[in-house]
Amino acid sequence: MKLKELKNFQVPGFLAGGMACGLKKNGIKDLTLIVSEVPATAAGMFTQNQMVSPTVPISRKALKASKSMRAIIANSGNANAFTGPQGVKDCRAVVAATAKALDIPVQEVLTASTGVISVPLAVSKIEAGIPRLVNQLSPKGWTHAAEGIMTTDLVSKICAVQYGDIVVGGISKGSGMIQPNMATMLAFLASNVRIDKRTLQKALKAAVDPTFNCITVDGETSTNDMVLLLANGTAGNPGVKAGSKAYKDFVTALTHVCKTLAFKIVEDGEGATKFVTFKVSGAKTTKQAEQIGKRLANSLLVKTALFGEDPNWGRIIAAVGSAGVPIKPEKLEVVLNGTPLVKNGEHVKGVTASSLRKKMKHKEITIAIGLHMGKAHAETYTCDLSYDYVRINAEYTT
Amino acid sequence: MKLKELKNFQVPGFLAGGMACGLKKNGIKDLTLIVSEVPATAAGMFTQNQMVSPTVPISRKALKASKSMRAIIANSGNANAFTGPQGVKDCRAVVAATAKALDIPVQEVLTASTGVISVPLAVSKIEAGIPRLVNQLSPKGWTHAAEGIMTTDLVSKICAVQYGDIVVGGISKGSGMIQPNMATMLAFLASNVRIDKRTLQKALKAAVDPTFNCITVDGETSTNDMVLLLANGTAGNPGVKAGSKAYKDFVTALTHVCKTLAFKIVEDGEGATKFVTFKVSGAKTTKQAEQIGKRLANSLLVKTALFGEDPNWGRIIAAVGSAGVPIKPEKLEVVLNGTPLVKNGEHVKGVTASSLRKKMKHKEITIAIGLHMGKAHAETYTCDLSYDYVRINAEYTT
Repeated sequence: MKLKELKNFQVPGFLAGGMACGLKKNGIKDLTLIVSEVPATAAGMFTQNQMVSPTVPISRKALKASKSMRAIIANSGNANAFTGPQGVKDCRAVVAATAKALDIPVQEVLTASTGVISVPLAVSKIEAGIPRLVNQLSPKGWTHAAEGIMTTDLVSKICAVQYGDIVVGGISKGSGMIQPNMATMLAFLASNVRIDKRTLQKALKAAVDPTFNCITVDGETSTNDMVLLLANGTAGNPGVKAGSKAYKDFVTALTHVCKTLAFKIVEDGEGATKFVTFKVSGAKTTKQAEQIGKRLANSLLVKTALFGEDPNWGRIIAAVGSAGVPIKPEKLEVVLNGTPLVKNGEHVKGVTASSLRKKMKHKEITIAIGLHMGKAHAETYTCDLSYDYVRINAEYTT
Repeated sequence: MKLKELKNFQVPGFLAGGMACGLKKNGIKDLTLIVSEVPATAAGMFTQNQMVSPTVPISRKALKASKSMRAIIANSGNANAFTGPQGVKDCRAVVAATAKALDIPVQEVLTASTGVISVPLAVSKIEAGIPRLVNQLSPKGWTHAAEGIMTTDLVSKICAVQYGDIVVGGISKGSGMIQPNMATMLAFLASNVRIDKRTLQKALKAAVDPTFNCITVDGETSTNDMVLLLANGTAGNPGVKAGSKAYKDFVTALTHVCKTLAFKIVEDGEGATKFVTFKVSGAKTTKQAEQIGKRLANSLLVKTALFGEDPNWGRIIAAVGSAGVPIKPEKLEVVLNGTPLVKNGEHVKGVTASSLRKKMKHKEITIAIGLHMGKAHAETYTCDLSYDYVRINAEYTT
């Protein structure tokens, strides 16, 4: 199977668009709409935070109740989270306005929000914007759609691949408050593949777990995270059975798109100057490998050392030792961008600080941790912690 | 019982001192010695990090093996952690040199180190320094002793109280890599109380759990943390039985000293501009209350909002919701320095952003979280996250 990345991004049978409806200042885009021209099967994964925006239960319920989906409406600039009963009403009003403008049933509309928490949503601006946005929808509208969901993102995030007649494409947003837990930030994915709802959900989980669920910018889990996937079947393939070659091909393509979009979020992490991969291997269980990876990726001391380009592997070891996973210190191995630093639990002699400092200047840093206790492994992707993270989050206002 | 804080700090029967032996540059103090003139009972609590300095198992073993203790020797400037078999030899050499200079058995010496990880210890400098330090010991030497264990600390940390004839005093160090787990940073405590070893350990745990174990600066658990307590019995009291009034009085005094020293660490947190208390109440268990408190205290988004003096309670709620503790969102209550922000899970109307901003300008911020699910509660103490935390830790070098 050969995957081809698409530059001029379209997904057959889908229309997309993004516009400014006035939630943000200065005419910056804040409203995104994705529509399938025919009923699509749909799948979703949602934040594990218990304090959620009404967009989460409303979209979750719609996914469960409806066999097919037609649209995703999303706004940025306001998360509509912790906004009380009014927030629920506002969310339903956005869904209703979308259904009306598209002349489709309300249960075929999914919705998402992102932005500041606990501020009432200016729902009339969205309601006024939707009919105009419907008029702007186009098969090439994905770049606009990607812009409509940005918050502190510096760049918009899109990716699409093709194999045979099947296209898988998507957009995502995210920069801070990033530690997905079963879902992440916002990502909207679309494909022309024909696939049943149950298999689609299974494929989405398979693609999200090693990608969106393995990134962290700051260890924070948002109130609004979700990944939504629509598949409208216009490719005319005979359907995709779980476990078949067609399934594996689809998961491969979907994982590629998810990984690319997830990496774009890490690269665009608030204040990020480095892209860091922690490869933990030799663990007894995948969960333990992930736990150590997440501990490293969220360690303030490791993250600031990476920003300072300081090969302070003492901090790496201290973080491994405090991850809450039983380890054997005498077997520990640490390799930094190919250079062994620790072997059999001891500092490798002859590695000079100056050669290490040179390696730390790379934009991409890979730190491999060998536990030599089992066969499980996991990768975690993160960025460093810089002055700009503090600036962005000390100044971002309620 | 009346506790009196002592300014000119001495503990009857104890000598202390601190000096520069050359581990640090520019003649900055880096060696601390505390000696009981008579055999003392001793207790200790140690880091839960699995990657530990040999000072941890060596002191832990000595505490277990020996009925009495005479001395604590500690250095700063080098943690002697992850230094392999040589580090163990070096640690033993320091203990041996101390025993020799004081003419006491090696098993009556406790030892601690703090500073950079994974650099071989310049043990000859310490060996040369010890006899000179022994000559400088004095009953009033605690301020020097407190200086000898400083690393990124901006201020030295001492505290002592008296009730009746009994004095409890101590010193501590710590500023970054602070999230104690059963113990913390370094703290050395001394009392003239007469108390058996087992009751002393019990009293220490009772005092450390709600104090040192409830602070966090950056969620990091050090490789070298320990709290040591010596009690030399020179007060001549008839002994302290667990559960008695004498026991409760001693724990009260010890807790006062531990709390004061713990608060000094938070106030001196790397880059700290605020002292923040999270009071979580109405939890089902103390552990769950602590878990929510720690999640809040380690949330980068909450900490940067505190630094930015931004009453961004959306971040507080998001952190509560992602602490991994089942909660009832509709019962949640949040109070900021006395002002209710959230009641019955909803934003309290009429609280203006400008009045909240004024409150956020205080140096001391208390955020109370009411869960209304049970009777357990916990307090967690922390500081904010500023540019200076990043600067200090990006520049602090291996």
